[in-house]
Amino acid sequence: MKPMGTIPADYAGMPLTIAGRSAEAWAEAAGDTPLFVYDFAAIARRIARFRAAFPHVDLHYAIKANPFAPLLEAMAPLVDGFDVASAGELARIAGLKWGAAVSFAGPGKRRDEIEAAIRAGVTINLESEGEAARAIAIGDMLGVVPRLAVRVNPEIELRGSGMRMGGRASPFGIDADRAAAVASEVIEAGADWRGWHIFAGSQALDEGAIIETQAETLALAARLSEQVGVTPPLVNLGGGFGIPYFPGEVPLDIESVGAALCARLADLPAVLAGARFAMELGRWLVGEAGVYLTRVVDRKVSRGETFIVTDGGMNHQLAATGNLGTVVRRNYPVGVATAAADTSREVASVVGPLCTPLDRLADRVGIARAGPGDLIAVFMAGAYGLSASPAGFLGHAAPREILAGVPDVPNAIFTSPQA
Amino acid sequence: MKPMGTIPADYAGMPLTIAGRSAEAWAEAAGDTPLFVYDFAAIARRIARFRAAFPHVDLHYAIKANPFAPLLEAMAPLVDGFDVASAGELARIAGLKWGAAVSFAGPGKRRDEIEAAIRAGVTINLESEGEAARAIAIGDMLGVVPRLAVRVNPEIELRGSGMRMGGRASPFGIDADRAAAVASEVIEAGADWRGWHIFAGSQALDEGAIIETQAETLALAARLSEQVGVTPPLVNLGGGFGIPYFPGEVPLDIESVGAALCARLADLPAVLAGARFAMELGRWLVGEAGVYLTRVVDRKVSRGETFIVTDGGMNHQLAATGNLGTVVRRNYPVGVATAAADTSREVASVVGPLCTPLDRLADRVGIARAGPGDLIAVFMAGAYGLSASPAGFLGHAAPREILAGVPDVPNAIFTSPQA
Repeated sequence: MKPMGTIPADYAGMPLTIAGRSAEAWAEAAGDTPLFVYDFAAIARRIARFRAAFPHVDLHYAIKANPFAPLLEAMAPLVDGFDVASAGELARIAGLKWGAAVSFAGPGKRRDEIEAAIRAGVTINLESEGEAARAIAIGDMLGVVPRLAVRVNPEIELRGSGMRMGGRASPFGIDADRAAAVASEVIEAGADWRGWHIFAGSQALDEGAIIETQAETLALAARLSEQVGVTPPLVNLGGGFGIPYFPGEVPLDIESVGAALCARLADLPAVLAGARFAMELGRWLVGEAGVYLTRVVDRKVSRGETFIVTDGGMNHQLAATGNLGTVVRRNYPVGVATAAADTSREVASVVGPLCTPLDRLADRVGIARAGPGDLIAVFMAGAYGLSASPAGFLGHAAPREILAGVPDVPNAIFTSPQA
Repeated sequence: MKPMGTIPADYAGMPLTIAGRSAEAWAEAAGDTPLFVYDFAAIARRIARFRAAFPHVDLHYAIKANPFAPLLEAMAPLVDGFDVASAGELARIAGLKWGAAVSFAGPGKRRDEIEAAIRAGVTINLESEGEAARAIAIGDMLGVVPRLAVRVNPEIELRGSGMRMGGRASPFGIDADRAAAVASEVIEAGADWRGWHIFAGSQALDEGAIIETQAETLALAARLSEQVGVTPPLVNLGGGFGIPYFPGEVPLDIESVGAALCARLADLPAVLAGARFAMELGRWLVGEAGVYLTRVVDRKVSRGETFIVTDGGMNHQLAATGNLGTVVRRNYPVGVATAAADTSREVASVVGPLCTPLDRLADRVGIARAGPGDLIAVFMAGAYGLSASPAGFLGHAAPREILAGVPDVPNAIFTSPQA
């Protein structure tokens, strides 16, 4: 038997209940399996928890974590801004109420994307000197003053982060030793300089490392701002908050991170006094709130090993199968959503329907005994799930998506059969 | 500098020409970048080469390798059958002319998929005893005699294959020691038993290993058929032919494999005399015929390293970024499609537009100097490209797809903006 990640406390009881309804009831509401259920109440609790821990920091949602339209709509009134990564993501929030607090990051912004962002009044996080020149030229051409921030490639590396984005040669941001010069050029060109974007890593679970990185980020922002000689309107501290997917990982204590940051923000150098600060979070806000439910189609024993075969897999949950940026495959938390509490347990592998050995949702884990008709739950499925998976692979139908627990719409079910 | 795979000989000259037109002309025809161009003439040559090497073996196309509709249409008259892996793939060939030679493999076939397959007269490759029972019951319910083959989980392992599918506990097929019993049950139940499907691995480049595996596969098919006491109508020998993606890999000599198989087929045990034999190939037929073209958006230097940033990446070419079943990231062959032959060369990394370090098409390779406006070609992109990639990730537009070189339609351009 191999270990798996810990099932979130909200979902520990079996048979599984999500936002007050059974997994089977959600499958019935969706009309078919597989499906994703996102509990918006859990997301709202995360937002409230962030607000309490970081009273002086704006909260932006990085929509790449989960761009499901009803989720964006529900989230819009609760956050201070959105971060988009393409013109396509920008179009997804076009109908929502938002002010100037949308930023656009990404190393390969096309001219048509830069133009769309400038027309929409979005802040472009400049990733290179070439992009700075293009954005200024496109603003001139359009007769619109572009909102431009400088994304910095910092010397800082977020220790222990799942994905390091600083401390090395990088496609992301402008090297710290050139960042102030580019900001000065932006200001001289008459653009609306919006400040700094400094992102040192993501998916970190070590509070000490995040506290240290945030301190270094503030120091870097101060140093760069001194070089420019202007207080930045906004310092985007990036994200970095991880969630526990794998065996032995424990949830992040964001309150200690907040307390440390709060103390530093109360004691800022003069050049940063008056600046706003923001964090952009994706995974930490929505990851744990999502459950992927897939129907067991077959149960088979091969050479003494038991396989539970489901109707969805890596085509919807690439990360859970270990094929998205992980070197060593480890098990996400999974469970049999339809099992009674007293169902006997066994060691089994959960595999999806694709004709490839890569399609394995769980490898030799201890779970309740399941057979055809049961529902398997893959937890931690709210972020980088469907949108980060090869949904068209092998031609299976798109999964359904449901947003549950939306305030003022108590029984709302939004289904998106993205065929 | 890190090595990369060898650019296929057809594409070695720069600036790049595909099916007689420049890469830039294809991009213009497509209307935008990124795009995939598939040269059907190259695919037809592969088919002809297979026919010459394997005169007594049917050729099936495994459409999961590339399900682009115009490609399936062009291929239909040239192959003896299709292998599908879902009801969705079956629907893709519904409008094409084909006889009974369609088979459906996959470990998680849903009841509605089994029903669709039986109604369509498709051969179901049974993956488990449970599936055998379901297929027989659904056939009874429909009043249609189902066509059923037994997929065998062989003791055989294809040495050196990129993806081993035999020789171990597996979600695929029925363990060899139960296969004959299931075939007998299928026959006794009045189903139309279609024979054996034995697939020991894929993406193999070692002729000796394939020859050995095919010999073992024939021996296994003979032994199982003896146990059943019936000559199988068809023995599907699987696929397994690899193509060279990575440094040091060389193309497979299929002619030596064909000669060895031909000799064995001329000297079959009695129980296999009269059986048909088939191979189902995907990657080997279409992989090398495809080129992915993406426009350079930015060129930047960070800490002394050069990055060429393109408008497409892992969202369309997950495998090339090393995120599909590879443990160690290695470089696919890439080139600057728009570079003149005498352009100076440099060491650079080619990265896509996504905000993640995973989005790297080539890591520190030696290529012609490129800048914004140039086109980057990623070769070996015809199989497991778009359909095996998370096309929706970060909200970028879908790439275009073009099928070039279709006989009787000399200048046909098929564009599929799969939005």
